[in-house]
Amino acid sequence: MSLIIQKFGGTSVADADRMKEVADHVKRTKAHGHSVVLVVSAMGKETDHLLRLASEVSQTRPAREMDMLITAGERKAIALMCMALHDMGVPADSFTGSQAGFLTDTNHQNAKILTIDPQRVQEAVDAGRVAVVAGSQGVSTDNNVTFLGRGGSDTTAVALAHALNADACELYTDVPGVFTTDPRVCEQAKKMPSISFDELLEMTAVGCPKPAMRSVEVARSYGVKLHVRSAFTWEPGTWVTKEENSMEKPIISAVVPDTSQSKVTVSGVPDNPGVAAAIFRPLADSDVNVDMIVQNTSDEGVTDISFTLPTEQMEIGKEIMMSVASEIGAGEVSTDDSVGRVSVIGAGMASNPGVAATIFETLSSESINIHMISTSAIRVSCVVNKADIEKATNKLHQAFELDKG
Amino acid sequence: MSLIIQKFGGTSVADADRMKEVADHVKRTKAHGHSVVLVVSAMGKETDHLLRLASEVSQTRPAREMDMLITAGERKAIALMCMALHDMGVPADSFTGSQAGFLTDTNHQNAKILTIDPQRVQEAVDAGRVAVVAGSQGVSTDNNVTFLGRGGSDTTAVALAHALNADACELYTDVPGVFTTDPRVCEQAKKMPSISFDELLEMTAVGCPKPAMRSVEVARSYGVKLHVRSAFTWEPGTWVTKEENSMEKPIISAVVPDTSQSKVTVSGVPDNPGVAAAIFRPLADSDVNVDMIVQNTSDEGVTDISFTLPTEQMEIGKEIMMSVASEIGAGEVSTDDSVGRVSVIGAGMASNPGVAATIFETLSSESINIHMISTSAIRVSCVVNKADIEKATNKLHQAFELDKG
Repeated sequence: MSLIIQKFGGTSVADADRMKEVADHVKRTKAHGHSVVLVVSAMGKETDHLLRLASEVSQTRPAREMDMLITAGERKAIALMCMALHDMGVPADSFTGSQAGFLTDTNHQNAKILTIDPQRVQEAVDAGRVAVVAGSQGVSTDNNVTFLGRGGSDTTAVALAHALNADACELYTDVPGVFTTDPRVCEQAKKMPSISFDELLEMTAVGCPKPAMRSVEVARSYGVKLHVRSAFTWEPGTWVTKEENSMEKPIISAVVPDTSQSKVTVSGVPDNPGVAAAIFRPLADSDVNVDMIVQNTSDEGVTDISFTLPTEQMEIGKEIMMSVASEIGAGEVSTDDSVGRVSVIGAGMASNPGVAATIFETLSSESINIHMISTSAIRVSCVVNKADIEKATNKLHQAFELDKG
Repeated sequence: MSLIIQKFGGTSVADADRMKEVADHVKRTKAHGHSVVLVVSAMGKETDHLLRLASEVSQTRPAREMDMLITAGERKAIALMCMALHDMGVPADSFTGSQAGFLTDTNHQNAKILTIDPQRVQEAVDAGRVAVVAGSQGVSTDNNVTFLGRGGSDTTAVALAHALNADACELYTDVPGVFTTDPRVCEQAKKMPSISFDELLEMTAVGCPKPAMRSVEVARSYGVKLHVRSAFTWEPGTWVTKEENSMEKPIISAVVPDTSQSKVTVSGVPDNPGVAAAIFRPLADSDVNVDMIVQNTSDEGVTDISFTLPTEQMEIGKEIMMSVASEIGAGEVSTDDSVGRVSVIGAGMASNPGVAATIFETLSSESINIHMISTSAIRVSCVVNKADIEKATNKLHQAFELDKG
């Protein structure tokens, strides 16, 4: 008998009807002879609702109390899910993060898992019951309730799959799998039957919304077999595995558009050792998520440094840069939120130097100007005008024949 | 420096504005040099909302999961209350029932407190912080989340007052105190400055809605000084204490109307030993809350037994009685939900036999027919037609000059 972890996101359990559908699916999984552990997020817009309540009540919102508040959402969901299962004759017990044995650090709002001791979950499974675990929560080393952050339910599921030595971890969501590109941007997008951890990591890093990057990192570290699939059509989705052995595998697997980032440029930066650290350390200290970094070749001892960050962090990023620039004797700081990024992902890219050339040619033939370029072994990202993102995505998807599946 | 427990019910913390008002009141209490521990119920209609969700999802609603669900409401409230306090510069920490050290039995939905070890609450108080404790919840001996039942927050507050050796326990509610009768029924109702535990117990037993009877029992057992008062006008309310020493105290303190009960009568009951047990044991086993019981004098070896129960339990009560009646060879079982009860409460009643006579004369002079009578040392209750309750209440209130305060 195999053990399967099934994680359901907020839209998958948004109301009573959805809960019953999920319960029915769990019942069918059990009927196929599998043991099931469920991980459930807060219902629909519940977390947003709680955040709104908090801002009505308080300007300061201490992090410890925010975690006490937000984790109430998942508690409701696990209790209701157990009731729905019980009605279908499937015995089930709910467990909070604490009861499921998730010990975390004390970093409220964004806690990291230290250890998992899922004894009560294992006992429920051994007794033939479904354990329903609250996603994205735990208890800290100083005995306070902690929240793992938005999207943390994926991490809960993957970590639990590892701790329980599960056969697979199914991440159910409102999309049917991982696509060759964003189906909302490009009609030719194709669902991939499988993808490697490294490729999926690069995709989530550049803006592919699901699953949460952190959970993919954990799954990759521990070799947890992931299956990203739909809680609405229930069709098979995309398997994420360690190795991709198929000979038929195309070199390029996906094109990922992303319009959530902006660009900051510091010009006239003195080209001295330690300058990069002087710029990026204060950003890191303020939790600014810098992504792409490009430094131009030095010209007479001065250079320009550009980087991308989430648009909602652009103002704070600029503020920090202004003060750094005056400290290190750099020139102007400029920002640009009219840009976007398109990334091409593929495991075979490193050994195929022609890929980057094809990308640049494709964009050039469409008269799309490239502002920044950054590459890794399995990814090429280009920052272009936001207005060009849709065209760039479609043309690159076509150029690499991803629409031919 | 004294320690005060302040308990706020659902309507007192129904929205962000109410939370801020409560936080402001706590701040002023602190400014007067008191330490404060707050006990908070779920916001407004939150518990009703959760119950509705549960019935949408499930017909069976296992008790363990109901407790996991319902207790999420108080968690939200304590977290938000701490945020509101924090905004006013009052440092505060929230504690769930489990964190506050409430160990209960395993009777989900209606758990009883076994022991309290409020170490974390005490530490917060010692550090000059306000501890905000979730009402009506705890953790069971087998480590599951438990709910103490509706109205359990009063019990949480009183039990905490005892365990922390607090100087007073203030129960804030949407009424300004305990009244000589229901102000909605009788305009002449007067707020009492003080009342004894025994009298308040009798009042809550016959339908006075606040505070919850169970909390008064606990307060009486441990001599916890209660202060029932308003979270809306903030005026001084009614003190509840062990002894009532005032020479001026009137014999009768209150008239309590109650239209929530119905009557069940079993006629032709053989007048044998053990018959009462045969009737009331199965009711107790099904958690039917029988209140008044009246057995008529035996007539030729057969008697009638009548009792009152909450109207919502009338059908199940009747069903049980039908099967009991056939077992013991009794006659017909009839029910009547067109009745109500009016009770007169007073500590001096036992030594004043004229009280009962005055009650019966008053009702008689208004042509109000009495169906059932039951008395205790400090209470006389009469079951009359529901339509007569308002008139009976007003006339009795007047007859005992309670309007003269």
